[in-house]
Amino acid sequence: MPSMGPVDSGFLLIESREHPMHVGGLQLFSPPEGAGPGYAREVLTDRLMNTEVSTRFRMRPAEPVGTLGNFRWHVDPVVDMDHHVRRSAVPSPGRLRELFELTSRWQGSLLDRHRPLWEAHVVEGLADGRVAVFTKVHHALVDGVSALQLMQRSCSPDPDARDCEAPWALRSPTGHERSVSNNPFPGVPLLSSVWRSGVDAVGELVSIGPNALKIATRSLRDTGLVTPFDAPRTILNEKVGGARRFVAQSFGMDRFRVVCKTHDVSLNDVVLAVCGGGLRAYLQELDALPERSLTAMCPVNLRDESSEVGGNEIGAIIAGLGTDLADPVDRLEAVHESTVAAKQTMRELSPLQILLMSGFNIAGLGLSMLPTYDLVGRPPFNVIISNVPGPRQQMYFNGAHLDGLFPASIPLDGLAMNITLVTYDDQVDFGITACRSSAPSVQRMIHHMEDALAALEATC
Amino acid sequence: MPSMGPVDSGFLLIESREHPMHVGGLQLFSPPEGAGPGYAREVLTDRLMNTEVSTRFRMRPAEPVGTLGNFRWHVDPVVDMDHHVRRSAVPSPGRLRELFELTSRWQGSLLDRHRPLWEAHVVEGLADGRVAVFTKVHHALVDGVSALQLMQRSCSPDPDARDCEAPWALRSPTGHERSVSNNPFPGVPLLSSVWRSGVDAVGELVSIGPNALKIATRSLRDTGLVTPFDAPRTILNEKVGGARRFVAQSFGMDRFRVVCKTHDVSLNDVVLAVCGGGLRAYLQELDALPERSLTAMCPVNLRDESSEVGGNEIGAIIAGLGTDLADPVDRLEAVHESTVAAKQTMRELSPLQILLMSGFNIAGLGLSMLPTYDLVGRPPFNVIISNVPGPRQQMYFNGAHLDGLFPASIPLDGLAMNITLVTYDDQVDFGITACRSSAPSVQRMIHHMEDALAALEATC
Repeated sequence: MPSMGPVDSGFLLIESREHPMHVGGLQLFSPPEGAGPGYAREVLTDRLMNTEVSTRFRMRPAEPVGTLGNFRWHVDPVVDMDHHVRRSAVPSPGRLRELFELTSRWQGSLLDRHRPLWEAHVVEGLADGRVAVFTKVHHALVDGVSALQLMQRSCSPDPDARDCEAPWALRSPTGHERSVSNNPFPGVPLLSSVWRSGVDAVGELVSIGPNALKIATRSLRDTGLVTPFDAPRTILNEKVGGARRFVAQSFGMDRFRVVCKTHDVSLNDVVLAVCGGGLRAYLQELDALPERSLTAMCPVNLRDESSEVGGNEIGAIIAGLGTDLADPVDRLEAVHESTVAAKQTMRELSPLQILLMSGFNIAGLGLSMLPTYDLVGRPPFNVIISNVPGPRQQMYFNGAHLDGLFPASIPLDGLAMNITLVTYDDQVDFGITACRSSAPSVQRMIHHMEDALAALEATC
Repeated sequence: MPSMGPVDSGFLLIESREHPMHVGGLQLFSPPEGAGPGYAREVLTDRLMNTEVSTRFRMRPAEPVGTLGNFRWHVDPVVDMDHHVRRSAVPSPGRLRELFELTSRWQGSLLDRHRPLWEAHVVEGLADGRVAVFTKVHHALVDGVSALQLMQRSCSPDPDARDCEAPWALRSPTGHERSVSNNPFPGVPLLSSVWRSGVDAVGELVSIGPNALKIATRSLRDTGLVTPFDAPRTILNEKVGGARRFVAQSFGMDRFRVVCKTHDVSLNDVVLAVCGGGLRAYLQELDALPERSLTAMCPVNLRDESSEVGGNEIGAIIAGLGTDLADPVDRLEAVHESTVAAKQTMRELSPLQILLMSGFNIAGLGLSMLPTYDLVGRPPFNVIISNVPGPRQQMYFNGAHLDGLFPASIPLDGLAMNITLVTYDDQVDFGITACRSSAPSVQRMIHHMEDALAALEATC
């Protein structure tokens, strides 16, 4: 039985019914031409089930409930695929709304620790004939970005390829990895590589204990990184319950690009301004908009934009979202100023401090999850906005077109809403995961983000 | 905030992801004539959602995680019905098999303790046009029999009645209670009244602690109640995981009655012999049939069959199931002898001992759930077979015909399979709930029970 690193076992330890620690991804597919009504069952499910499973996806905790330091992995020789790959259907009228309702439930329920820590749901019954696959994987097994990359890599850019294997398959066909892009958003790194390089350091911190984290966080505050955008208290920074709401939406990349060009800002700035506009309207509707602007933590590449992506000059910035400003252009400018200033500040942080902040974000390992530290009360930021680069071209799974790949993430105490986006060819796929009670009716966010983007387009 | 009794808080305390402590009921309906394709959504769900909710169904633990003795109830003034009443659909080809697969998942996942402790799932998409409602309620809120009775009482014997309200509605129309029968199976009591009368005594025992239970159980063994049918170890008496498999089946009551008549045994004896025959074939297939016969615990009425049902002369017997006998008539006779002998023995037990045994069964409060007591290793019996009397006539929910009412119950460590049946007019509705890992492929049980019943019919 292989033993488990302190970070991975940490995800198991801090998990509770209020804090499921799995990441998810919703893939939406258009069946290949000529696919019959039994496609989801006979073709897609069959392919996902009948495969040899890789070691990682046969791993489960040797003891389902362990104590600090004594978690070990057990690798199951045989996997009961009926348990792991499940079929479902959306109820009438079969819109995306009904699909998201199902996804929300799955994202809010715990994985069975007596089995390898993943599940996939093949969903049929969408009125437009499309099928969806929602995959959830425990964070102790694989981090969110790697999970999304596994899903991407199971697909092929070739619509005629029929050798695509499930993300949990032992062998993915070679040659598909190239289809995963380098970073399409300047300023946003490939997170999984960051996380991998940061694992040891964060693990070390966890093993040192919460005091070290407190000290490190205090030093972060002292650098002035947080101070310029001191986060107000909001309803998003309360304790969370166990129920989740997941919503998702694709936006055309060109809509963002035209705003970039007109206002000479980065694509990421526009994304943040759209999120900011969405949050402003969302909180206004709930009569819960604070006077000061909300802030977001987001991972960035600190290298010069002209340099190659990679290496360790990567961190997390806290950006203002301009939620205190009614005018969309004022908001975009406020966001832009804040990201420029924050990147500058980040250069002055030590690698450990940067890793600490990155660990926060990338790992989902919030300080809040540690017993003696609590984000509720004095939030260092209001929301996490993560940006995961996806394929730069259209992708297919054995001929089924991948219409979108929407990430589902982990709300924490003090961080009730988590926004993650994947860039995929010419679109930006947003997934918003929120606590149902702290952040009610989060499906409204999608409409408000659409409005915010449209308002920016109107200025171009 | 009302405080919680020790038994109710016990159900919250012992709950874990391996031991969800909720009971469930699957109602299968035929829509009324002329119902359109939107019936499940527009009519049924609408009626279930738009109702004032009774106090009991607004109760949640004030602190989701408490320690012994400090649980209190909080009554939510407003209930988020979107969370509690959920719509789903069965995937293709829309058979009962797919419905049971969904039900299995729901029975195996924990309720959200931040909300009132119940959920209902309205299921459409069955190929035959029927709709299902699966309701799960935490055992701390209501015991299994009462939950089933609530579901029954929400229905009416009048197909034209349109005033039927959800089981969680504040006001059920009066006059429907009469539709719930007295006991149709002689020898099987109305369990909820037993449980209610037993609550205080069992609660007392829980507060005294596991030692008292140990002593009481030992005294039970000493009476010889257990000894004549000493239970062998089987795969059903191992620790359970968190995943469940739920299967259900209706059998015609007349099929049982003809066997009763021919062999001059009770209906309950035939039920047990059919379960025994099913278990024999099921375990044989898994190469796991022990030499000695399996035993079942089942609740019985200890009064004379001619006397009125009611009062406290009620207990639980342990019956042999004749799984060591290949011949169906030999098996039926062995069952009959064991139930006659057991009822006699039960008369000699003290009321406390009887209540203890009843508490086991009715409450789902297994001794095994207490930290220092473990049924694994030396099972006092192999399986629980409960028999819940249901309506004696055809029932309707606002015109939708109730085709069946199948109970889902709680497997425990050492009791991986739980068989519950509801008698409803001219049919017997079985629900089998099992741990997926300890009791694999439990859907086979249904086929084997059908075979066992057919074999008995062939002797008539």
